[in-house]
Amino acid sequence: MSRYWSQTVRNISPYVPGEQPKDRKYIKLNTNENPYPPSAKAIEAIRDAVNETLRLYPDPSSEELRETIARTFSLKKENVFVGNGSDEVLAFCFPAFFEPAGLPVLFAEITYSFYPVYAALFNTPYRLIPMDDEFNVPVEGYFQENGGILIANPNAPTGKGLPLEGIQKILQRNAGSVVIIDEAYVDFGGHSAAGLIETYPNLLVIRTLSKSHSLAGLRVGYALGGNDLIEGITRVKDSVNSYTVDRMAQAGAREAIKDVACLQETLSKIIQTRERVSAGLMDMGFHVIPSQANFIFVSHAQFPAVDLFQSLREKGILVRYFNKPRIDNYLRVTIGTDEEMDRFLEAIAVICEKRI
Amino acid sequence: MSRYWSQTVRNISPYVPGEQPKDRKYIKLNTNENPYPPSAKAIEAIRDAVNETLRLYPDPSSEELRETIARTFSLKKENVFVGNGSDEVLAFCFPAFFEPAGLPVLFAEITYSFYPVYAALFNTPYRLIPMDDEFNVPVEGYFQENGGILIANPNAPTGKGLPLEGIQKILQRNAGSVVIIDEAYVDFGGHSAAGLIETYPNLLVIRTLSKSHSLAGLRVGYALGGNDLIEGITRVKDSVNSYTVDRMAQAGAREAIKDVACLQETLSKIIQTRERVSAGLMDMGFHVIPSQANFIFVSHAQFPAVDLFQSLREKGILVRYFNKPRIDNYLRVTIGTDEEMDRFLEAIAVICEKRI
Repeated sequence: MSRYWSQTVRNISPYVPGEQPKDRKYIKLNTNENPYPPSAKAIEAIRDAVNETLRLYPDPSSEELRETIARTFSLKKENVFVGNGSDEVLAFCFPAFFEPAGLPVLFAEITYSFYPVYAALFNTPYRLIPMDDEFNVPVEGYFQENGGILIANPNAPTGKGLPLEGIQKILQRNAGSVVIIDEAYVDFGGHSAAGLIETYPNLLVIRTLSKSHSLAGLRVGYALGGNDLIEGITRVKDSVNSYTVDRMAQAGAREAIKDVACLQETLSKIIQTRERVSAGLMDMGFHVIPSQANFIFVSHAQFPAVDLFQSLREKGILVRYFNKPRIDNYLRVTIGTDEEMDRFLEAIAVICEKRI
Repeated sequence: MSRYWSQTVRNISPYVPGEQPKDRKYIKLNTNENPYPPSAKAIEAIRDAVNETLRLYPDPSSEELRETIARTFSLKKENVFVGNGSDEVLAFCFPAFFEPAGLPVLFAEITYSFYPVYAALFNTPYRLIPMDDEFNVPVEGYFQENGGILIANPNAPTGKGLPLEGIQKILQRNAGSVVIIDEAYVDFGGHSAAGLIETYPNLLVIRTLSKSHSLAGLRVGYALGGNDLIEGITRVKDSVNSYTVDRMAQAGAREAIKDVACLQETLSKIIQTRERVSAGLMDMGFHVIPSQANFIFVSHAQFPAVDLFQSLREKGILVRYFNKPRIDNYLRVTIGTDEEMDRFLEAIAVICEKRI
């Protein structure tokens, strides 16, 4: 604590990302990174952008990239906002659409743990929507007065998806509120609401290239929505930093998005591995929440999650453990390559004293 | 205006960066970019970082880059914060150190026009300190009750520097306030306050690689200050976006900062050109504010600035014109290469109907 800190900074509890340790080589299954390389065409485009033009500012409004994204979703570039990762895009949405000291923003009891952090920074009141024991959120939970709605679909860290009919009901019952669907993981088997943007002016869909496009290190996320929602986020961006997406990121993201073949190949490998690993863990007595994401959320009645986390760490395998009510006996395990997941399953079998 | 916008977003007037037109090739003297290429070693390091590791998140706390910067200033990495350009670093300082509805933050009547934009977004009250006709700010202007102080040194868009003795007086008289010195242009002839950090716990120095290091397209800025000030900004960053500086930017910035020879060569060329151009303009009857930056702020009694701006634009030369009280008869002209500035001087001479 410092005499120079504002009240806001005294009160916030910043988000803590999954660890990126350097002490030894780990199998990293803790930050939902993609185990496969990004598009070779994207890598080439990024290399081509590394030249003397770096002395010049990037395009502050990422015109070409927004046009590429718009084409992919049959939208206009006025329906697309681009930022430095989807976390930044989400952060900008809070001052853009939610009122400090207004009605509470609604989000699920268990969801991306960055949401309450944004709320604290921007003094946004919020209300948590309760879930059942299988981490389902009844859509009726969102049928109450609110200052906005924020839904990760598929949800994190559970991997559970909400069908589009549910999203539509929520959009219809909340025509006066901005409903943000955070689709960071949607490519791995979820149902995107992007096709609903022209129907619902209150819908904003947020996506990232960090997961499905294997570009966590490039920092590109985007939002899709009606012109006025996009203009609202843009006004916040232009009140923080005119140039959030650098020259390499704009060039690389364009090619990554165009390389649909690379995306499809990566996705199908990860989905197959996820299903195989889920089955293997269930054989060992694990409870595995059905996942539409590139991670699984698992629990075992006999082996406390925190012990499994620690034992795996000692064996050089990092997974994510959240020391939080209701999920403190779960592990979130990112889906790696088949080889990595075989090592993970072997390690789990050894820890559980039950050879496969 | 949209029904979905927050009150904040309705009220703000976002910053408008200098234009980046694509309609034709211009001599770009409007956004204070460096006309010389970045360090070849930096370019090489950026290229080396473009590989399959882009699938992984960057180091969220930019440890190696912070160590490199710390060494340059004989500080510790705990005294360094790194962000996506100095604009982002400045933005994070507002919620970190300034209170909404608290005492006003002080800054000069004419200074970087992003400051009031941040203040509007974060609901920070501010008070403008008046300047004299030559754009000097008396240090006594900062001897009043305040919630923080923000000084661009050298100032923009005037290029005028404040001597270190003045800065020290301000720091001493405001021991309870965070005093931010924005040194975006200091390398071009200003006097850095970085050496005062260990003496004044209320001092925060903010810098960028966009200008002196020719890396506007890479997006790296940083802050130097006491541990607790750095921790305050970090808490805000980690409440917005864990990973603001991508892998290429971290790698490139390290090498750019180490390449002092490249920096010195660039700086000495720009300073020489600035002095020559200033003299040339004075010969043509211009009033030239003495500049410590990579731009000059100039005015002519007979030729309105807005007309000069428009005539230069027609001749393919972009400079910056601010349609604002007190400075609406000035042009801010970035110092380009000698060739570019010769073309600029020729164009000015033609416009003023007086061949050199």
